[in-house]
Amino acid sequence: MEQNKKTPISSLGEFGLIRHLTENITLENASSKYGVGDDCAVLEYPNSQVLVSTDLLMEGVHFDLTYVPLKHLGYKAIMVNLSDIYAMNGTPRQVTVSLAISKRFGVEDVEELYAGMRLACEAHHVDIVGGDTTSSYTGLAISITVIGDAPKDKITYRNGAKETDLICVSGNLGAAYMGLQLLEREKSVFMGESDAQPDFSGKEYLLERQLKPEARRDIVAALAEAGVKPTAMIDISDGLSSELMHICKQSGTGCRVYEEHIPLDYQTAVMAEEFNMNVSTCALNGGEDYELLFTVPLADYDKVSKLKDIRLVGHITKPELGCMLVTRDGGEMELKAQGWQALNEA
Amino acid sequence: MEQNKKTPISSLGEFGLIRHLTENITLENASSKYGVGDDCAVLEYPNSQVLVSTDLLMEGVHFDLTYVPLKHLGYKAIMVNLSDIYAMNGTPRQVTVSLAISKRFGVEDVEELYAGMRLACEAHHVDIVGGDTTSSYTGLAISITVIGDAPKDKITYRNGAKETDLICVSGNLGAAYMGLQLLEREKSVFMGESDAQPDFSGKEYLLERQLKPEARRDIVAALAEAGVKPTAMIDISDGLSSELMHICKQSGTGCRVYEEHIPLDYQTAVMAEEFNMNVSTCALNGGEDYELLFTVPLADYDKVSKLKDIRLVGHITKPELGCMLVTRDGGEMELKAQGWQALNEA
Repeated sequence: MEQNKKTPISSLGEFGLIRHLTENITLENASSKYGVGDDCAVLEYPNSQVLVSTDLLMEGVHFDLTYVPLKHLGYKAIMVNLSDIYAMNGTPRQVTVSLAISKRFGVEDVEELYAGMRLACEAHHVDIVGGDTTSSYTGLAISITVIGDAPKDKITYRNGAKETDLICVSGNLGAAYMGLQLLEREKSVFMGESDAQPDFSGKEYLLERQLKPEARRDIVAALAEAGVKPTAMIDISDGLSSELMHICKQSGTGCRVYEEHIPLDYQTAVMAEEFNMNVSTCALNGGEDYELLFTVPLADYDKVSKLKDIRLVGHITKPELGCMLVTRDGGEMELKAQGWQALNEA
Repeated sequence: MEQNKKTPISSLGEFGLIRHLTENITLENASSKYGVGDDCAVLEYPNSQVLVSTDLLMEGVHFDLTYVPLKHLGYKAIMVNLSDIYAMNGTPRQVTVSLAISKRFGVEDVEELYAGMRLACEAHHVDIVGGDTTSSYTGLAISITVIGDAPKDKITYRNGAKETDLICVSGNLGAAYMGLQLLEREKSVFMGESDAQPDFSGKEYLLERQLKPEARRDIVAALAEAGVKPTAMIDISDGLSSELMHICKQSGTGCRVYEEHIPLDYQTAVMAEEFNMNVSTCALNGGEDYELLFTVPLADYDKVSKLKDIRLVGHITKPELGCMLVTRDGGEMELKAQGWQALNEA
């Protein structure tokens, strides 16, 4: 960000800034009755259950502005939240956005951030209905609350997995984590801490997975179309191991996951090799893929196996069998939740 | 806060901390179907419109931990949000709480903060249904989203005020601002920047107004019981002037407010004198009273004037007459929104 030529936020004031950022927002959803401009937004959900999830993202903990463009940050901040609604088998409808902005940001910076947020919302037909902007003495803080709906009988919790259920994963895993490693390496080059040459060519996919993840609206739609209701579902933000253990713990079950079935992109494997990392470990513990992990009854095998971009990775077991990874050589290893725990890092 | 004997938050981990803070929460509201523990909370509002409001509070901007006890901070953070639901003539039902916590906090500190939040929620029969805890490299950040409901025909917006409507205010104004001045003076004594002796005796009310404000659930209930539906309503967080101007701008009207009718507590007046401040200015521009400002049709005069703790302070006019304060000597002064603008301070 250039320090010059920026319009100071104080020239607009708090209310002016909100007006400026939210003008021309047209509400797309029937459930959005009233948006920005009063003490509250007003919504109406007469026939569905309402899903609510919230996330607080802090500069330095969740994002690093030395390599994350503000527009991407805005996009991702929204996506991460929409993903929580999809993980309940629901449809996101509204978000509220609160920003705490430090002095080094100008109006143009906040516009960039907001542009990314609006882009993500438009792509998923979600309305921005409220928010708050304030100053911060320190870093940028972004708080997003997402609201969505689902018919009562469609909502999928984490606690519904049953013995013999199949474990499914959308897309592929570990790519976002590899993208982060790439960006961190680039940063250390930039900071003069490393002699490695940054080289992103052929690795655009990994960067995109890290910087511009896509919440899996399409998977929720495909499952509905195929007449499959998962017995349990969660989105993969902290790594496959950690999320599987949430499902097993809350469902009172164990599981077997097969290393050879974990979906990997070719670039993820190449990059892991380059970094001298075990690619399965990256897929199991690397976070931020925002893919969906879900279980379906064995009877749905035919339906699920026909769906594009969904991979069967294992099955649910009795609790006393534990949560195990079956390795390529046929051995068994206990899964560990050593995922991305923001709280322990700072 | 003592730096010793604290339990480090890392000993619980993120999920452990959330579990610890939210255990034993029982859901009070029929609309709260599922609380903490999944990707989303699940709510159900088949017969009402849903109200949503959100707030992001940053250390150093919105609160100063040198004189605000954590339990009070938690209490106030919730109240401020509930107040937004009451300002729409609604009933708050659920909150989600996100915390970003810096390293200097231990488990006991977060427990204190959360205890204040739970106390506020219990007092207003509100359920904590979700949240997020993360680390912060800098100060404490608190993000709260409140969800509530109201029958469609009861919701009160800012934009419904009509010419000749009466302007009403609950409680009294300026006391929270005076409480802040007192605390700031105490801090400067503590820091050795001032020789004044801190003396809170007889000023407990002002401190309580600043540190432990009460959202006016009782006023919303009293209006409903009296059969009065305000034409416009807002809560007073930034000062009477600023809020009145919001109502007038959004309703396309002007107003006349009478200085002599602005409700003041005796202690507020005494304190203003001591600080050599104009007490009316404090009441007009001092923020954080969290009283309700509303307008009612002239025909409701009898009903409203019988209600306890509600004062008529003026009336709505044609827009071309402007937003004016009628001073004690009968002069007129244009109202200015120089309220508490967090954005311009940092």
